[in-house]
Amino acid sequence: MKVLQVDLGQRSYPIYIGTGLLDAGPVWSRHLPGRQVLVVSNETVAPLYLARVTEALSGSRFSVETLTLPDGEQYKTLDTASRILDTLMELRYDRDCTLVALGGGVIGDLTGFAAACYLRGVHFVQMPTTLLAQVDSSVGGKTGVNHPLGKNMIGAFHQPRCVVADIGTLDTLGERDFRAGLAEVIKYGLIANATFLGWLEENLDALLTREPEALAEAVQVSCRTKADIVARDERERGLRALLNFGHTFGHAIETGLGYGTLLHGEAVAVGMLMAAELSRRLGDLDAADCTRIRRLVERAGLPTAAPEKLDAQRFLSLMASDKKVRGGRLRLVLLASPGRAEVRDDFDPGELRALLETFPRAAAYTG
Amino acid sequence: MKVLQVDLGQRSYPIYIGTGLLDAGPVWSRHLPGRQVLVVSNETVAPLYLARVTEALSGSRFSVETLTLPDGEQYKTLDTASRILDTLMELRYDRDCTLVALGGGVIGDLTGFAAACYLRGVHFVQMPTTLLAQVDSSVGGKTGVNHPLGKNMIGAFHQPRCVVADIGTLDTLGERDFRAGLAEVIKYGLIANATFLGWLEENLDALLTREPEALAEAVQVSCRTKADIVARDERERGLRALLNFGHTFGHAIETGLGYGTLLHGEAVAVGMLMAAELSRRLGDLDAADCTRIRRLVERAGLPTAAPEKLDAQRFLSLMASDKKVRGGRLRLVLLASPGRAEVRDDFDPGELRALLETFPRAAAYTG
Repeated sequence: MKVLQVDLGQRSYPIYIGTGLLDAGPVWSRHLPGRQVLVVSNETVAPLYLARVTEALSGSRFSVETLTLPDGEQYKTLDTASRILDTLMELRYDRDCTLVALGGGVIGDLTGFAAACYLRGVHFVQMPTTLLAQVDSSVGGKTGVNHPLGKNMIGAFHQPRCVVADIGTLDTLGERDFRAGLAEVIKYGLIANATFLGWLEENLDALLTREPEALAEAVQVSCRTKADIVARDERERGLRALLNFGHTFGHAIETGLGYGTLLHGEAVAVGMLMAAELSRRLGDLDAADCTRIRRLVERAGLPTAAPEKLDAQRFLSLMASDKKVRGGRLRLVLLASPGRAEVRDDFDPGELRALLETFPRAAAYTG
Repeated sequence: MKVLQVDLGQRSYPIYIGTGLLDAGPVWSRHLPGRQVLVVSNETVAPLYLARVTEALSGSRFSVETLTLPDGEQYKTLDTASRILDTLMELRYDRDCTLVALGGGVIGDLTGFAAACYLRGVHFVQMPTTLLAQVDSSVGGKTGVNHPLGKNMIGAFHQPRCVVADIGTLDTLGERDFRAGLAEVIKYGLIANATFLGWLEENLDALLTREPEALAEAVQVSCRTKADIVARDERERGLRALLNFGHTFGHAIETGLGYGTLLHGEAVAVGMLMAAELSRRLGDLDAADCTRIRRLVERAGLPTAAPEKLDAQRFLSLMASDKKVRGGRLRLVLLASPGRAEVRDDFDPGELRALLETFPRAAAYTG
């Protein structure tokens, strides 16, 4: 088992990474301060892992209840968060209760947001069961839900008491979801770690066959990269924006197609290529860099073209409603080089439009 | 104009108290960091004061929009907060936007909660137009909405950039609402300031005729008392609980009758008398103290009996779902003496039951 510490002063917490951790109650149950526990999961994950978590807590000081929600990004809404709150109210859980999020990023974001709002804040623990959640949404304290007009527009910063990343849960992850998670892994290499980018190019085949050692290494380096950035910028004033590399384009794609059409990681994969291409237009990357990045994304089995139904005008409109707009100016995370990202709002809007007009499109678009 | 500073480190903010402040844009508009402003009000307050606020901001750097919500505690719901979020999304407001809450406690709590959740937190300014909001809900950073099973169970801590308490707005406040506000003013005397309690007994008639000097003094001392307590305990770990004097009983009454039947301050008035009576049973107050407190509440025109339809069993059940329950034990704020409150969870539950069984009831119960 590997342990990473996310350093946020009083809100610091550990990330446990390893195989079989769901059963290892003694490792993580000491991070649940009270007696009342609500494990929130979804219809896909619950049959596989819910009993292991409740059994890990049985016979001890806990009173454990469970809530199983429908599975899918389309359920990441205020209404679903409200169902968690209703359950907590019906159980009469008090301020010492803990919510455990067992599932992917949607369950983590929903459960974390409910934990942030219930009684103005109760404890929660993340147990991410997808690669995407393990390397991304379980680290950093961002919680929230989507609005029909934009992703993640409603939420709170609320740090977990700990994160339990059981690599073994990735065995049951569908191929498409697994590859979508790789998009975020690749992102960490691109924005902050050229060495890791090289390691990914060398070890992608091992990752694709889900070799445990390769997976643990990829999750650990990804979490460490994110944890380092978050520790230096908890409330997203500056540096943390780098984590959004590919996301402004990606969110536009997800919103434009309707939530649930494309997986988040798939949209981010295309978004990263679009951001790389814009970086090339602005003179920061050369064509070989872009080809290298595209090749890695292709090998990971991720989409590399934007959806045909989103023309340049629609893209611009969708991007304008993104959270990253400040004072009317669009800020984008671009690449200074492969392995180093930067926030820019000083580019010629004409270059963005030209990119959106020329970037390859695909018609049949399901990832 | 009086200015109080609430000292919360980076989240410190001023409270401006005086007459005509709604029009005094230069006093408070510098606390709005960005260009986009949404003033949220309700159908009662908007016709009276909304134009004054928007005019105070006109001709300057601001782009001002307004949203008028229905009036009443029964609208303090997640659904109404969601309407504010919908408006912000439709306006495409960014992270530098400011929400201005113009109204009573319901508008302040709803707007503050929406500001806490939108893009995981944007700025907001409180412009309380009721006595209750001026002395209570506008100070301290508590925001939130009610759940059908309990008051203020969903929310966030989110501090305003400033509070603008225009005493002049109290001129249009209905008599019943005004008296409900006095309940919280009396509370500050009872929990922390015996001198102020004496002052209130001497100046109650001046307050009841709404003499501006008396009102400004009462609002200032109340805000200072609350600000002092909040500054020492922002996240409600201990001391801040004293502010809930009368509220656990009061919330049970409000929930038991259904929101909107009784005003919050009216329920708190009864709750304070119930807490005082329990303090007497536990030997901390003598009968003369209780009579003195009851007399002041009576003179303020506030209810002094509990609703007949809530018997002891129903009361206990309602109080058990209060946020103040920890580890299954009910914690109540009681009086050590008139002017000094204390949190207690060590009392004999039989005394609480006996109080609930014997406390005076009234049948016709509309405050």
